[in-house]
Amino acid sequence: MSKSFNETDCQILEEILRLRRDVRGNYFTDEPVSKALISHLIKAALYAPSVGYSQPWQFVVIRNESVKQQVYQSFKQANAVGSSLFLGDKKRDYKALKLEGILEAPVNIAIFYKPSKTPVLGQTSMKDMGRFSVVCAIQNLWLMARALNIGVGWVSIVDAQQVKQAVNADEDAELIGYLCIGYVKEFLDEPELKQKGWAEQKNSQDVVFFDSFPR
Amino acid sequence: MSKSFNETDCQILEEILRLRRDVRGNYFTDEPVSKALISHLIKAALYAPSVGYSQPWQFVVIRNESVKQQVYQSFKQANAVGSSLFLGDKKRDYKALKLEGILEAPVNIAIFYKPSKTPVLGQTSMKDMGRFSVVCAIQNLWLMARALNIGVGWVSIVDAQQVKQAVNADEDAELIGYLCIGYVKEFLDEPELKQKGWAEQKNSQDVVFFDSFPR
Repeated sequence: MSKSFNETDCQILEEILRLRRDVRGNYFTDEPVSKALISHLIKAALYAPSVGYSQPWQFVVIRNESVKQQVYQSFKQANAVGSSLFLGDKKRDYKALKLEGILEAPVNIAIFYKPSKTPVLGQTSMKDMGRFSVVCAIQNLWLMARALNIGVGWVSIVDAQQVKQAVNADEDAELIGYLCIGYVKEFLDEPELKQKGWAEQKNSQDVVFFDSFPR
Repeated sequence: MSKSFNETDCQILEEILRLRRDVRGNYFTDEPVSKALISHLIKAALYAPSVGYSQPWQFVVIRNESVKQQVYQSFKQANAVGSSLFLGDKKRDYKALKLEGILEAPVNIAIFYKPSKTPVLGQTSMKDMGRFSVVCAIQNLWLMARALNIGVGWVSIVDAQQVKQAVNADEDAELIGYLCIGYVKEFLDEPELKQKGWAEQKNSQDVVFFDSFPR
């Protein structure tokens, strides 16, 4: 018989989902993160679904300061470009935000999608499915980290090509996510961008529809 | 103080991650799935991280037979194209697999990415980040479904444009995932494609690297 989960299990999962946060450098501590703990996180990632059981992921666990510095330089350049796209109050607010924790977090993990050279079952119509499998692995890792009371921040303000060079990735590998990982001073109760009024929470009736979008 | 999870919580999460399966039509039962249960799943999805707190997701909960039939016809066409890409034994094995549960599952959910018309914080360098946020929401939903002992199958062998037409989606909305949802006869112990020998499980040392890929 298949394992049947109970109401308590559901509640625990819901708490982990609800209290998972994106953690930036001002919340990480320098408490070391053990190899065993990183293995635990990657084990969780590897339980992810993958299209056609292709397991198209690659993880690079980074502690090396020089690699981190290269990625941090890439962030700085990309962030200058990013902030330039916002105007007025939004630019001011953007510049006041800490948006990464590359150097503060004891461990970084770069996660890549490695395309298959042969057709993948399930990826013949929707070509992004391999990338999406890698994202599912990242979300698994993130949730397990929260259950282990470890913070994770996903840094997307980088030049993917520069990150690939920093870790010597193959030309066909694609950066999907760059994670900063470490113990934290605290987990915020709510997303920081919500707390600070950067954007409001959407109403569920604005994003959930039945059978069809309104005609 | 932030909530601190304990070892039992971690073990429960790990079991949910490990025992989550992709469910196809031959495993769904016709036991009805309540509105409350679908709301519970969507609530879990909405706890997902989203780049710049953009919440760029749209969910269409489908019970209408005519909509399901349109999506099923799209699957049949796309699957004929997909199977034609495999040769010899692989083609035989492909054709023997049940790859969707569109009509068997009492509920389907189509999940879309709705791009922002203005710049999104964190999406200025990596343009796929909005899509990836939607995938995180799908993985949250999938895990909560497993905790509720509900099966989910992700159908990727469809023409996204045809699915959009079937639910009257805006032109700029992008289909990210199409899920079949229902109670199941059983959850397999392992991914079906692994059990049936379609592909082997990769060794973790082949996908995990330290500081850099080998030079």
